[in-house]
Amino acid sequence: MTDLFWPGDERAGGHFTATEFVRAMVEVESQWLGDVLEVPDDVDDIAREAADGGNPVVALVRRLREQDRDVHRGLTSQDVVDSALMLMAEAACADLRRDLAALGSSLARLAGDHRDTPMVARTLTQHAVPTTFGFRVAAWLTAVLDAYDDVARLEFPRQVGGAAGTRAAIVELGRELPAGVPRWHTTRAPVTRLGDALVGCTDACARIANDVVVMSRPEIGELAEGAGGGSSTMPGKANPVLSVLVRRAALTTPQLAATLHLAAAQQVDDRADGGWHAEWATLRDLVRRTLVAASQTAELVAGLRVDTGRMAATLAAAGDAVLAEQRTMTDHPAPTYLGDAAAYVDGVVARARETLR
Amino acid sequence: MTDLFWPGDERAGGHFTATEFVRAMVEVESQWLGDVLEVPDDVDDIAREAADGGNPVVALVRRLREQDRDVHRGLTSQDVVDSALMLMAEAACADLRRDLAALGSSLARLAGDHRDTPMVARTLTQHAVPTTFGFRVAAWLTAVLDAYDDVARLEFPRQVGGAAGTRAAIVELGRELPAGVPRWHTTRAPVTRLGDALVGCTDACARIANDVVVMSRPEIGELAEGAGGGSSTMPGKANPVLSVLVRRAALTTPQLAATLHLAAAQQVDDRADGGWHAEWATLRDLVRRTLVAASQTAELVAGLRVDTGRMAATLAAAGDAVLAEQRTMTDHPAPTYLGDAAAYVDGVVARARETLR
Amino acid sequence: MTDLFWPGDERAGGHFTATEFVRAMVEVESQWLGDVLEVPDDVDDIAREAADGGNPVVALVRRLREQDRDVHRGLTSQDVVDSALMLMAEAACADLRRDLAALGSSLARLAGDHRDTPMVARTLTQHAVPTTFGFRVAAWLTAVLDAYDDVARLEFPRQVGGAAGTRAAIVELGRELPAGVPRWHTTRAPVTRLGDALVGCTDACARIANDVVVMSRPEIGELAEGAGGGSSTMPGKANPVLSVLVRRAALTTPQLAATLHLAAAQQVDDRADGGWHAEWATLRDLVRRTLVAASQTAELVAGLRVDTGRMAATLAAAGDAVLAEQRTMTDHPAPTYLGDAAAYVDGVVARARETLR
Amino acid sequence: MTDLFWPGDERAGGHFTATEFVRAMVEVESQWLGDVLEVPDDVDDIAREAADGGNPVVALVRRLREQDRDVHRGLTSQDVVDSALMLMAEAACADLRRDLAALGSSLARLAGDHRDTPMVARTLTQHAVPTTFGFRVAAWLTAVLDAYDDVARLEFPRQVGGAAGTRAAIVELGRELPAGVPRWHTTRAPVTRLGDALVGCTDACARIANDVVVMSRPEIGELAEGAGGGSSTMPGKANPVLSVLVRRAALTTPQLAATLHLAAAQQVDDRADGGWHAEWATLRDLVRRTLVAASQTAELVAGLRVDTGRMAATLAAAGDAVLAEQRTMTDHPAPTYLGDAAAYVDGVVARARETLR
Repeated sequence: MTDLFWPGDERAGGHFTATEFVRAMVEVESQWLGDVLEVPDDVDDIAREAADGGNPVVALVRRLREQDRDVHRGLTSQDVVDSALMLMAEAACADLRRDLAALGSSLARLAGDHRDTPMVARTLTQHAVPTTFGFRVAAWLTAVLDAYDDVARLEFPRQVGGAAGTRAAIVELGRELPAGVPRWHTTRAPVTRLGDALVGCTDACARIANDVVVMSRPEIGELAEGAGGGSSTMPGKANPVLSVLVRRAALTTPQLAATLHLAAAQQVDDRADGGWHAEWATLRDLVRRTLVAASQTAELVAGLRVDTGRMAATLAAAGDAVLAEQRTMTDHPAPTYLGDAAAYVDGVVARARETLR
Repeated sequence: MTDLFWPGDERAGGHFTATEFVRAMVEVESQWLGDVLEVPDDVDDIAREAADGGNPVVALVRRLREQDRDVHRGLTSQDVVDSALMLMAEAACADLRRDLAALGSSLARLAGDHRDTPMVARTLTQHAVPTTFGFRVAAWLTAVLDAYDDVARLEFPRQVGGAAGTRAAIVELGRELPAGVPRWHTTRAPVTRLGDALVGCTDACARIANDVVVMSRPEIGELAEGAGGGSSTMPGKANPVLSVLVRRAALTTPQLAATLHLAAAQQVDDRADGGWHAEWATLRDLVRRTLVAASQTAELVAGLRVDTGRMAATLAAAGDAVLAEQRTMTDHPAPTYLGDAAAYVDGVVARARETLR
Repeated sequence: MTDLFWPGDERAGGHFTATEFVRAMVEVESQWLGDVLEVPDDVDDIAREAADGGNPVVALVRRLREQDRDVHRGLTSQDVVDSALMLMAEAACADLRRDLAALGSSLARLAGDHRDTPMVARTLTQHAVPTTFGFRVAAWLTAVLDAYDDVARLEFPRQVGGAAGTRAAIVELGRELPAGVPRWHTTRAPVTRLGDALVGCTDACARIANDVVVMSRPEIGELAEGAGGGSSTMPGKANPVLSVLVRRAALTTPQLAATLHLAAAQQVDDRADGGWHAEWATLRDLVRRTLVAASQTAELVAGLRVDTGRMAATLAAAGDAVLAEQRTMTDHPAPTYLGDAAAYVDGVVARARETLR
Repeated sequence: MTDLFWPGDERAGGHFTATEFVRAMVEVESQWLGDVLEVPDDVDDIAREAADGGNPVVALVRRLREQDRDVHRGLTSQDVVDSALMLMAEAACADLRRDLAALGSSLARLAGDHRDTPMVARTLTQHAVPTTFGFRVAAWLTAVLDAYDDVARLEFPRQVGGAAGTRAAIVELGRELPAGVPRWHTTRAPVTRLGDALVGCTDACARIANDVVVMSRPEIGELAEGAGGGSSTMPGKANPVLSVLVRRAALTTPQLAATLHLAAAQQVDDRADGGWHAEWATLRDLVRRTLVAASQTAELVAGLRVDTGRMAATLAAAGDAVLAEQRTMTDHPAPTYLGDAAAYVDGVVARARETLR
């Protein structure tokens, strides 16, 4: 899958594609049936018929019943759709964790390499005090590890509730109740927690990309993307394209997660009248954009070019101004003014090693 | 195009599809070149290559230059993408206006038919005073006409600015400057106004759908969707599926329009570093979902079943309670208590006739 | 504090008021100083002066230095503001947990009381199958417990980083480094996680309120708010005001949490240039509205009037239609069709007992 | 009014304060009564009582009836609240237009002064081609004029509909119907259009502030805020505080406008069950933040320090790279490469003169 409106989309592979959605729903029905069903391949037809029932399950089940007439007995549409979404989300988050882990490892290496590389710290865009590039990278890494922790904590419950959550048909059929499988038709925390965790990932990625777009400005020149993107009219121009595309994602994902919460807050009766239906495409976009952003950020960091000479020169040029604070602290300033920056780097790198192993 | 994650998506036809995006960009380049260029058909390849430059134009121009080496001279990527988006938006809004006009005409007819159909008014969910169903429909129609006016007022400026908006290359080439074509690389009102107007449409559609889901509850039963959607497990169940899907849309579009504003507010320098790139998919989703919602609402209203007997019965059953206000106004209550409801209906219907002719 | 634009605001007490913000910042400075500082009382003047430095700390420290000239040595504005926000958030979440626990206990009682109260289940607004009111309440309770868990898991880290996070001044002063106190100037997970958890609470509250506004419609009449609110013109009208105000909150909070994420994603350098400043008022509104909603929902549930006769009558009137599914399952239908609804109620009530003790 | 959580809030003066809200509601009731009513001064008490009815009108009318028992006859709460909001909005937008006009005039002057000041254009953060600072300012000005136009186009309809919009009580009282006053209880375009226009203003202001924070980075140094804000720990530091606070606003307002749309899309029956109530505080915050941002941007531009020497030096240092495009256009490059930048400046300045006179 690619998306001309979202360059880089193919990095998300087959996750949450229409084909995968059908496959996941068939897997849910197969598991319930206890037999392996074939996956229909007329995905577009199913999509078109989905509008009649408001969701794709009626159209899908009609096809599956031709294979086995006991398909779907005791289930309801929402059981199938929600379980399929969770199945897809679990697979996507496994890949996401792998990407975040790669990113985290790159960052840990970079932080270690530049643990003692002097640089000027900037606050509210202005030169502040000395710092190290390793310290900055450790801050990036902290954000990535926080995001990783939130993804790692997610659960992806399947769902079996039947028409209204009471499992009446299952009991009527004399079928054994599924142990450990919850029902959460109208309680959407599994979805909103997923959305929130994904946004945490794009937050962390954008935080890195923001620094790259600033520090790769020609007047600063302390960082550069490995390759950079070309212009359609200006030969030789190298744009920080990965960073730009990562920043793009982070401008859109918080509103997608907000939509999931709004949908959750619209739950009513024993099945929602619109809130549920708003989740599917929203979740798809949120998952895919997060995967793309994580992959792009990992590539960005892996290829990042660091100009330590330029960092040193900027710090030197900043001169006395960045020592103004130090002079208010003591009459006998120490030769360096880096506090426990190195210890912070070491601590974050250790946390990465612990978290990502 | 269909979207399994957004049942009903095919109602938006080819608007803002990848194919159409390529076609529109080629049309922009053709007009600039003054010659007709052929449209490449390897859309997926272009999409994949788009990630290199951050937008699809470099990849597209490479292909077009094989047809004519003077393609794109004096333009920049943003000229092509923005002009193509506006081209697509103009076509989509023409269809949208047609759908809104059909919806408006249905509503005007319905309001006229039920100008004097008595019904209970409900405020904060509780019975309030008598009203007419025509009055309610006229309120729906007002919202639709307001939305229509906002769409009708939109402009879809093409853009020719060159690398940084100064048109330097065009002047250097000795080419005549395009009269009446603005440049708006970093001033995004054409995009945000479009987004805001589209959300106005889904607001208006949802306002109708909300009433249908309430009034088609079996305990109320004053309205019903023409067909209704079936259940995967409960035979005979008829769900107000069109209304549900319209409500779904309106839960998502405000956040998409907000994203367009956030992107506009991120404009910086002579071309944005992420804000611009966030617009394309957002606009696509916003346009398509609005088209789908308008079409679904038009179908919903055209097929709406009105149970005037039930309306009368509810009003009768409400009894004295809905006349409580009247009794505080006068000791000699008039036989009806409908104020100028009929005049309001007439006024709104006249406005519809004026607006939609 | 009250807010004429947000009826019920006073339920949030003094949490996140200006006075409390000043008090919390002084507490942070006092703890750092190791001495008790007096709290200035010219809050409005501090607020006005805050615009000069972009945050209130410069103005505050100027006042505190008159008490002790060693105030704030080694800290930076963000240390003080962030630590104060966390201090306030911790206190607010303690109260929130108390309100949620009260709500949860009421719900557990209600679910138990109506464990076997028959009612019609509704999906997509239409009658579906039989259920019990206790089952419905158990679903409400599940959402509340999920929200409670998320709030209970929150951490409220204080922050000591100094000008750029390196703690250079602290080391320069020879002061012992604060053990166990992190620095998170540009990594905002503590703020976004808080925001996300709060929205989870309003989601859960709205899910209850939605059912109350539906089920207290006069045509349904299965539930009613204990008191209800009056009308300015219609005597005798009783509106489900608590539910309406809870629903109001849930329409606004997801966008506030999205703003916190957007702000987090704008972090750059060693201190953000706008993202940080967007958090304060956003967090204040989010916290207070969540407290108000939780309190209103607790009152709503405590006073809820349940009309079991009406529930039974609706179910009886629904007749055969709600048994359509059952008949497709078996030729010899069981006398009831409630599945394991009662077991679900028992399980959720047990979870509540475990969680809220 | 000040707000410690939103430094600069006092710039919005008394607009949309609680006092002003009460005053506006009393004005609405006075006009309807045809007599001047005194404004109660126990605003906090009214706010507290507002929770009972869900809005402040019941509590207010109770007080006003002590002055004249015919107060409010024929009106409903929503008539009073909506009309008061529009009254306040109209006054706020008059001030906003004044601020935007001042800003526009400053920008027109600045654009004219720097019509021929050479500078390097930057796209995706990288040097692109030559431009002028006047050209950049003209782009800022275009955005401001677009925003101004949208505000100028707004309408602020009062509302008289009575309990359910039918004006039944007014007719019953034999009172003349208010000519030219619409009723729009459940059709919220007046509110959403207002919100959208306000966000357009913060978009335009942020677009300026973004450039200032970039160009006032010490490594670029082409612009500086007139005063700049100090640090709590680093003497001599001058932060671009106005720009930072303007950027802050623009991160929050799109989500507030989205909330207004979500509320509009929740309209149901003849009065909403939560959607209406979500508007008041949202609109208050949106209006005040926009006023503050416009005022801060006007001050920012009025005091902006432009370093034309630094601009020239950067352009010179960029050297051949910024002429790469030109060389692909011609073998005999013209001595300048500024296209019709000056003509654009002149055109925008003329538009400003026309618009703002």
